[in-house]
Amino acid sequence: MAAPLHHDVEHLAFLLGRWRGHGAGEYPTIESFEYTEEVTFGHVGKPFLAYTQRTRHAVTELPLHAEAGYLRPVGLDRVEFVVAQPSGIVEVDEGPLVGQRFELDSQSVVVTNTARSVTAVRRVVEVEGDELHYTLDMAAVEQPLQHHLRAVLHRVDDAT
Amino acid sequence: MAAPLHHDVEHLAFLLGRWRGHGAGEYPTIESFEYTEEVTFGHVGKPFLAYTQRTRHAVTELPLHAEAGYLRPVGLDRVEFVVAQPSGIVEVDEGPLVGQRFELDSQSVVVTNTARSVTAVRRVVEVEGDELHYTLDMAAVEQPLQHHLRAVLHRVDDAT
Repeated sequence: MAAPLHHDVEHLAFLLGRWRGHGAGEYPTIESFEYTEEVTFGHVGKPFLAYTQRTRHAVTELPLHAEAGYLRPVGLDRVEFVVAQPSGIVEVDEGPLVGQRFELDSQSVVVTNTARSVTAVRRVVEVEGDELHYTLDMAAVEQPLQHHLRAVLHRVDDAT
Repeated sequence: MAAPLHHDVEHLAFLLGRWRGHGAGEYPTIESFEYTEEVTFGHVGKPFLAYTQRTRHAVTELPLHAEAGYLRPVGLDRVEFVVAQPSGIVEVDEGPLVGQRFELDSQSVVVTNTARSVTAVRRVVEVEGDELHYTLDMAAVEQPLQHHLRAVLHRVDDAT
């Protein structure tokens, strides 16, 4: 991006770039699966980061999940996250930021009429250098909030 | 995209590609403005289209708005739309599709704690050949639902 990073997101610069890696998913209602993933965090000089994610099945390489959204700082120690998913789901999440780790708990999850029910999501993201770890817990299809996804990505490009 | 278009979105193929053009915005609480815009509708072989949008101020060329989401067919005559905006807003919209025109009324609009209030959105999109028109009505900051945006875009690339 040509624009300089906005002052309000300078402390989130540790996220910027393109990340690739592997993850694993499980849930009581489905067969466990492994996936490859690409995530980007970019900016346009405004006080938010743009986020995209795509995963592919580790074996078949067919597209699995995708999502796109925006990360908004609330001062230096909290973040808000809005995200849309092609499965017909949107989330508004919020939580604390400590160093290069943030936790997001869904404040609201809304689904389309034809989507499956998702009622809560919890995302934890931590970056150490060029390695990004995340976990995602989900309450869906009448199951309580529980572990669903875990992945480790590596930064492959500083710019997006 | 290498993947063939999924059968369930073949009737939405008229949207695919990269679109550029100009628009104008107005609202009782702000100064009217003009913008340039780029929109993409893409696919990965699954039964939805991925949508991205970015606008820039027509004069200063600085980034204005952005949004990212997904369009989901409901049979042949309705569509669902989920979208996230960096202003801290998510929408779940739905409405009828007739030919190359669809109308989306928000079923739910949710905003983050620090976002401005938006309570309803209505989007009308129509494509004729390589020209795309849209209007967007919005109820926000205690104003009733009313005209906010109008733009005309042209397809500049078939693939995204």
